[in-house]
Amino acid sequence: MSTPFTDRHIGTDAGAQAQMLAALGYETVAELVERAVPASILREPGVASDDGTAEPAAGTAASVIPPAATEAEALAELRSLAAMNRPARSMIGLGYYDTLTPSVIARNVFENPSWYTAYTPYQPEISQGRLEALINFQTMVTDLTGLATANASMLDESTAVVEGMLVARRASKSASNVFLVDADALPQTKALLAHRAAALGIELHETPYDLSPPPADMDVFGAFIQYPGASGRVWDPSEVIAAVQAQGGLAVVAADLLALTLLRSPGSLGADIAVGTTQRFGVPMGFGGPHAGYMAVRAGLERQLPGRLVGVSMDASGAPAYRLSLQTREQHIRREKATSNICTAQVLLAVMASMYAVYHGPNGLRAIAAEVAAKALTLRDWIVDAGSEVLHEDFFDTIVVSVPGRAGEIVEAARERGFQLWFRDTDSVGISVDETTTVAELHALAQVFGGPEQRAFGFVIGPVPASLPESLRREDEFLTHPVFHVHHSETAIMRYLKQLADRDYALDRGMIPLGSCTMKLNAATEMAAVSWPEFSRVHPFAPAEDVAGYLVLIEQLESWLAEITGYDAVSLQPNAGSQGELAGLLAIRGYHHDRGEVQRDVCLIPSSAHGTNAASAVLAGMRVVVVACDEAGNVDLGDLRAKIAAHADTLAALMITYPSTHGVYEQDVVDLCAAVHEAGGQVYVDGANMNALVGFARFGDFGGDVSHLNLHKTFAIPHGGGGPGVGPVAAKAHLAPYLPSHPLAQRAEHAGGFVFDGGPISAAPYGSASILPISWAYIRMMGAAGLREATGAAVLSANYIAARLGEHYPVLYAGEGGLVAHECILDLRPLKEETGVTVDDVAKRLIDYGFHAPTMSFPVAGTLMVEPTESEDLGEIERFIEAMIAIRAEAARVQAGEWPASDNPLVNAPHTAASVIEGSWEHPYSRELAVYPVHTLVRTKYWPPVRRIDNAYGDRNLVCACPPVEAFA
Amino acid sequence: MSTPFTDRHIGTDAGAQAQMLAALGYETVAELVERAVPASILREPGVASDDGTAEPAAGTAASVIPPAATEAEALAELRSLAAMNRPARSMIGLGYYDTLTPSVIARNVFENPSWYTAYTPYQPEISQGRLEALINFQTMVTDLTGLATANASMLDESTAVVEGMLVARRASKSASNVFLVDADALPQTKALLAHRAAALGIELHETPYDLSPPPADMDVFGAFIQYPGASGRVWDPSEVIAAVQAQGGLAVVAADLLALTLLRSPGSLGADIAVGTTQRFGVPMGFGGPHAGYMAVRAGLERQLPGRLVGVSMDASGAPAYRLSLQTREQHIRREKATSNICTAQVLLAVMASMYAVYHGPNGLRAIAAEVAAKALTLRDWIVDAGSEVLHEDFFDTIVVSVPGRAGEIVEAARERGFQLWFRDTDSVGISVDETTTVAELHALAQVFGGPEQRAFGFVIGPVPASLPESLRREDEFLTHPVFHVHHSETAIMRYLKQLADRDYALDRGMIPLGSCTMKLNAATEMAAVSWPEFSRVHPFAPAEDVAGYLVLIEQLESWLAEITGYDAVSLQPNAGSQGELAGLLAIRGYHHDRGEVQRDVCLIPSSAHGTNAASAVLAGMRVVVVACDEAGNVDLGDLRAKIAAHADTLAALMITYPSTHGVYEQDVVDLCAAVHEAGGQVYVDGANMNALVGFARFGDFGGDVSHLNLHKTFAIPHGGGGPGVGPVAAKAHLAPYLPSHPLAQRAEHAGGFVFDGGPISAAPYGSASILPISWAYIRMMGAAGLREATGAAVLSANYIAARLGEHYPVLYAGEGGLVAHECILDLRPLKEETGVTVDDVAKRLIDYGFHAPTMSFPVAGTLMVEPTESEDLGEIERFIEAMIAIRAEAARVQAGEWPASDNPLVNAPHTAASVIEGSWEHPYSRELAVYPVHTLVRTKYWPPVRRIDNAYGDRNLVCACPPVEAFA
Repeated sequence: MSTPFTDRHIGTDAGAQAQMLAALGYETVAELVERAVPASILREPGVASDDGTAEPAAGTAASVIPPAATEAEALAELRSLAAMNRPARSMIGLGYYDTLTPSVIARNVFENPSWYTAYTPYQPEISQGRLEALINFQTMVTDLTGLATANASMLDESTAVVEGMLVARRASKSASNVFLVDADALPQTKALLAHRAAALGIELHETPYDLSPPPADMDVFGAFIQYPGASGRVWDPSEVIAAVQAQGGLAVVAADLLALTLLRSPGSLGADIAVGTTQRFGVPMGFGGPHAGYMAVRAGLERQLPGRLVGVSMDASGAPAYRLSLQTREQHIRREKATSNICTAQVLLAVMASMYAVYHGPNGLRAIAAEVAAKALTLRDWIVDAGSEVLHEDFFDTIVVSVPGRAGEIVEAARERGFQLWFRDTDSVGISVDETTTVAELHALAQVFGGPEQRAFGFVIGPVPASLPESLRREDEFLTHPVFHVHHSETAIMRYLKQLADRDYALDRGMIPLGSCTMKLNAATEMAAVSWPEFSRVHPFAPAEDVAGYLVLIEQLESWLAEITGYDAVSLQPNAGSQGELAGLLAIRGYHHDRGEVQRDVCLIPSSAHGTNAASAVLAGMRVVVVACDEAGNVDLGDLRAKIAAHADTLAALMITYPSTHGVYEQDVVDLCAAVHEAGGQVYVDGANMNALVGFARFGDFGGDVSHLNLHKTFAIPHGGGGPGVGPVAAKAHLAPYLPSHPLAQRAEHAGGFVFDGGPISAAPYGSASILPISWAYIRMMGAAGLREATGAAVLSANYIAARLGEHYPVLYAGEGGLVAHECILDLRPLKEETGVTVDDVAKRLIDYGFHAPTMSFPVAGTLMVEPTESEDLGEIERFIEAMIAIRAEAARVQAGEWPASDNPLVNAPHTAASVIEGSWEHPYSRELAVYPVHTLVRTKYWPPVRRIDNAYGDRNLVCACPPVEAFA
Repeated sequence: MSTPFTDRHIGTDAGAQAQMLAALGYETVAELVERAVPASILREPGVASDDGTAEPAAGTAASVIPPAATEAEALAELRSLAAMNRPARSMIGLGYYDTLTPSVIARNVFENPSWYTAYTPYQPEISQGRLEALINFQTMVTDLTGLATANASMLDESTAVVEGMLVARRASKSASNVFLVDADALPQTKALLAHRAAALGIELHETPYDLSPPPADMDVFGAFIQYPGASGRVWDPSEVIAAVQAQGGLAVVAADLLALTLLRSPGSLGADIAVGTTQRFGVPMGFGGPHAGYMAVRAGLERQLPGRLVGVSMDASGAPAYRLSLQTREQHIRREKATSNICTAQVLLAVMASMYAVYHGPNGLRAIAAEVAAKALTLRDWIVDAGSEVLHEDFFDTIVVSVPGRAGEIVEAARERGFQLWFRDTDSVGISVDETTTVAELHALAQVFGGPEQRAFGFVIGPVPASLPESLRREDEFLTHPVFHVHHSETAIMRYLKQLADRDYALDRGMIPLGSCTMKLNAATEMAAVSWPEFSRVHPFAPAEDVAGYLVLIEQLESWLAEITGYDAVSLQPNAGSQGELAGLLAIRGYHHDRGEVQRDVCLIPSSAHGTNAASAVLAGMRVVVVACDEAGNVDLGDLRAKIAAHADTLAALMITYPSTHGVYEQDVVDLCAAVHEAGGQVYVDGANMNALVGFARFGDFGGDVSHLNLHKTFAIPHGGGGPGVGPVAAKAHLAPYLPSHPLAQRAEHAGGFVFDGGPISAAPYGSASILPISWAYIRMMGAAGLREATGAAVLSANYIAARLGEHYPVLYAGEGGLVAHECILDLRPLKEETGVTVDDVAKRLIDYGFHAPTMSFPVAGTLMVEPTESEDLGEIERFIEAMIAIRAEAARVQAGEWPASDNPLVNAPHTAASVIEGSWEHPYSRELAVYPVHTLVRTKYWPPVRRIDNAYGDRNLVCACPPVEAFA
């Protein structure tokens, strides 16, 4: 009998669990969890038999979620689903292009746990590898766009355009509420702008710029320009840009990075903001994602940038060191006053795109672009020769062919030859060529338009094809930094990738016990299908009949997640938790509006909430009202009732996290929800902590109306070093009509027969579709019983840690029976008071012990929130406990005056190898104690590449591009 | 235009090459190579145009080898070939079984360059990770076989049986020349035994042991027993074993490791030697390989073990450390007196198999075996119920069904349902179940024999099924070491694999400039297809119509290699260079015998030859006569003529390596060959150094009759940490009939229409077929012109290093114009004399500088042989040169008396992190100098996990199994 996957996923085996339960005084895991979870919400387990062979009773989880498959069975099913997708050459364009992922990058980044199991680089000392890759990404974007500062990264191009609009609104001196939109923008971008603008009261004016330049007396806060246009047209937007700026507006330009290797940069044309996607830089289309979007801004707008910004600072030795800059503008700190709700980025994909540029270098990229342009020009010529007309004279990779009345017929004829074209309207089709297009394919395509069957294939690729207007040809250099010039052989880039990975700490080294982040196993079997071409080389707007396998997988996953959460309908479109949250709040907004209750715009949010909650509420057009928490960390029911009363008529929603961000199962949750419902409000339950609930209770059962989930927390999608994430939104039937829709979706209907009509929240109909097989495989291999087991194991481990560490660090909050949920908050404030040792010191000292720190100072300053997840085994948990106890003992020596407050192993942590080897050793503790505080570390040591990083210095001296090589001398 | 793969594979770009050429005083690479290679053998380049589009002229390399494909094109072609293989459920058995490779092992070992690009662990200090994995392998084998010592590893089961026979002959006290062979042995094993025994004059007697036990008065040096038998029969061989031993013979038992989890071990039954394969422990069938064979022996036979043996010793700090034991019995030291000619092992596969055991643990393995046995029993019952008879009552996984006259029909009926059965003879078929077999498949199979269409599927798996006789049930424990008990969750084994990989130095860290080993890039695109199920889940004896893709790929690769070498016919069967060599020599032997010249048995071998040459010659039944080399390192033509004259009538062959093992192109090679031919001998050219020749000269053109190639050197197959290798044998037409054949080959004909009839050299018809796509892709993406370019770049880099380092270390040999070929020998004997610093010291000190040492003391003691290959870029080459110069300067300080001979950074190298951190520092040089002799190492440091290892200690105190955990305390 193959070992069940559950036993591979869950780190603690029966023996270890028995030992842990004994320490806690419980007989079984179920007993422990049932004591912790309020009886009012507890659910009976499904009745699937242990071996998964018995027929489950109807209506139980097991009846929706099939019995656990083995790894081999799950792979076989995924292969069947993959086979249902019809491989086709996509030439649809519209922001998605087939691309050649260099095998060396696929293997050593995309398929390498050292990269994909890393967390967001909030502990920069142990994230220098991916931070360097992200600095390369930012440099690539700023160079190509000709702007001063780029972030890393945006979720996709269309959401980046929305964010660009929001930057423009914040930064513009104009009092106007109007934003101009390019008539030649991508259709999904237009739809997203419309949906998001509506919630914020922004008025959009669509304009065909080239035909009617904006009048001088217009009053707008900004304008959006697609460059090149969705129709492929290449034109010079500098006059439009100047006109917008002349009256105080900002110009947001969405630009194709590959085209920018040949065309003048947005910066050189005067743009304030450039946005777009880096997908075609080696990141598979993946039926829509994930890919890294980008945003760059001119000097002066840095502090308006949404999302994450990597910058250069220095470490305690004065050596350059990377870390996230200007975090005070982000949602987790500024909450409702943040520049954006974006949290998760697309780090793994940004790394891939940056490495594509590193591997090809500027000349390689230019050559790829020139070939793409030459192929488009050839196709244009061949189609014109065959008697059709083509819309524009100037273009890069996309042509629109005029086929009056015959577009459907042409698209079908092309499909029969294996091509997907863009059905633009009944009279025209769009064709985009890309890096992968062959001349034979161009020939076959021309035949669709009546081209000859025989043809001499030779064609000449000049440096810049004639289809690019002379006046717009790029003259300035880009990617001049050495990093883009020295890794062009495969050997060289393989070693560079290895060196960077060696600098980082990911799950393949040890526990990352980050409270609220659920850093569980990302199993190799779960990851397998993501690399298969049947899933990766699929355009998001491919016809439904070509993506049948995807659609089945998506419907199954929707139905499983609905079953697990107790909701009726699920949308997988949001490509980050923050976007799921926003989609959920917009659904609530839509619901109230449709009922004529447009005044309902107050969103109650407990003080303990994730900052993203508040930021998303604002973006949904709501006003945030904070609800207090009591001393036990629970929502203060009295204050809640008071706030409800105060805002009775305007109450839109309550947002709660369950279990709470304090890591406990609040007893009153049913009452909280009821109170909101009584006042006509809707209950939004943040699914961030769902790993403490799966199989034991369901949001939909205890009062939730809508939730987002984090597939990258609870459902095994890796964090990718800071993204991708997937944030499905799930809702009760009454909110289903307001869930995300998409103008180019293959199918209106979703699992359960629901049709969504809420407007798009992501650029692609199913968001980051290509990583959905990960969560699908996780659920498929765990089965309903296995998912419940995982929850139990996670809660057991958290309680075990709380119990073992409680005497050394007070556990701040606990629920019934003194139990925590799946995480526990260790209060380090007493330690600080007694010894002067800070949370930071402990977190950095943990690096010396070979650990990633727990979540720092969230939700309470001066604390550490520890979440071991179910995947850690007892050996690793004990190693962590022992490290924490040893650190407490070290702090005691500071307290005792044995080591001065300014010079001890805690305040000096982390210790690099160089810092204990180079020069003389003047500290009051030994070199051994510095780096080998536990002897087993001699064998397993992870060496941090830099010492503690000075964050303030980096914020004061903002540098967000590759530093010169000399800086490292 | 995609960057050509050539530019990714070759590390030096045009600019770097120009710089290097300028230093050497040449204009072009071609000029340099044409100066170095004798004009008498130089070949005109092919005429393929640069862009590969022009039609090549007929008869040129380019006309056989297609123009270079891009990586995407090569992958697409491989996908087409893969699609031509028909996926089927193999139940053929005969030593090959489908298996579930745990995804975590596939991803983190099989597809991880940190594992597969490592070299053989001859520098044990930087190979501790894979040495630990191999110690686990040996422990697994000794535990399961119940014997004292196992090696790591054999090439496959059948060659392991041959090696077992040879051990028996060496160790037996009997003077007999007879070896008993089990009539129920695998057919390929019987064929291999016959072929190999013939060359050595061993007489084989085949016996059905169970029917007629060997008589007490038999006179044999050993006996071979298959356990369980090829027919699936399980029986107790202990009486046979005792009878053989009673008269001085040794018992060699081939045992199935999975069966041994339930059946009494060979050791407990009295066997002296156990052999077999570990394929079904998670290593894909791969159409025959590569897999790790195994051999274990009872106490007292350790020094007779062929191949590599990992043992425990200690490092300079007294810490336990692994390294290869008892190397003095190996072919590279003992030459014609070695215990075997085996050189390359199957390290990567042995690592996988050992990790399969580590991941499943003893209970997991037992459960898998019990399920397999239960499924076989179920199938037996269902088939018997349906009216057929089954041969044996006692069996493990294989049953033979009696189907008088209908075997062909049954096999075909099964094939239509997707199953491959074993056509045993016209009256019976064999069926083997395995880990992957499902109950639904058993049901479908039973239907082939007339079973019912409907059936209740449930069946019960007891701990030991009734099909295993009570008296043979295993009672003793195995795999009791903790390593087999603590890595059962995926998180745990992922981290264990990462920790082991972190201890090792592979090509993903830096240059491995090993002379004679050609450690070039193993590109990710080349590696891709090996993982595809269409190539990996294929039985070596599958019917030809199910493996059409493989057969096309093999024929293409044969024809390309023939073209590259100038030979007529190529066999890909040998699964290591040593086996290719043996096959080539056996072909020569067959040729002479067929011509009635049976007396021709003298093999001339220059003193500079690889030791394997001599060992292989002995195994081919030849007598080795050594030919002297002159001072310049060339074969002494005078001595050669003298030796030819002395052995005129008995001359069988001359074996030479070209370019010579001294790294030079010998001018006289045409004359050498002619002299041998004149005397009626054949010329064997060892292809080890072919990387210096491809595209510039061909063995077949200058006089070679037969050669083996090393696809793992010249043709980009990775070294896998010490295997797998592939050693094709290529020959002129007159030797083609004597090239390897195979009784179960799908096809008798090979590229060029040749039919081989030499007898098998490997267990599978096409050897390690699943890794042939690597070399196929390499040649396909390089094209003829690219291959020539690579040779040029390799020769340029070697000459550049020779020129730059010549003033610091004399270059021992050079050919015309003072030029070396693709490698250069640095003479360190003057250094030793002047400073006392040894080759070992320099090699180990290079580790501190972040390098793998060059080849040590081969072919000349006291030297280092440096081969940079074409894949290293100038930056890495300069870094190496600078390190060597810096080391010379360090030696000068020893010479000057600044540092004592017994305490300096050279003699103490390598320095671990712990050694410079722990305790006080008493050395006359600084800690910084010890580990950061170059400042850039602070950023890129590779930390060796142990200090210098005491080899003698380990050989004196032989421990070849996992040491207790306390040893590391």
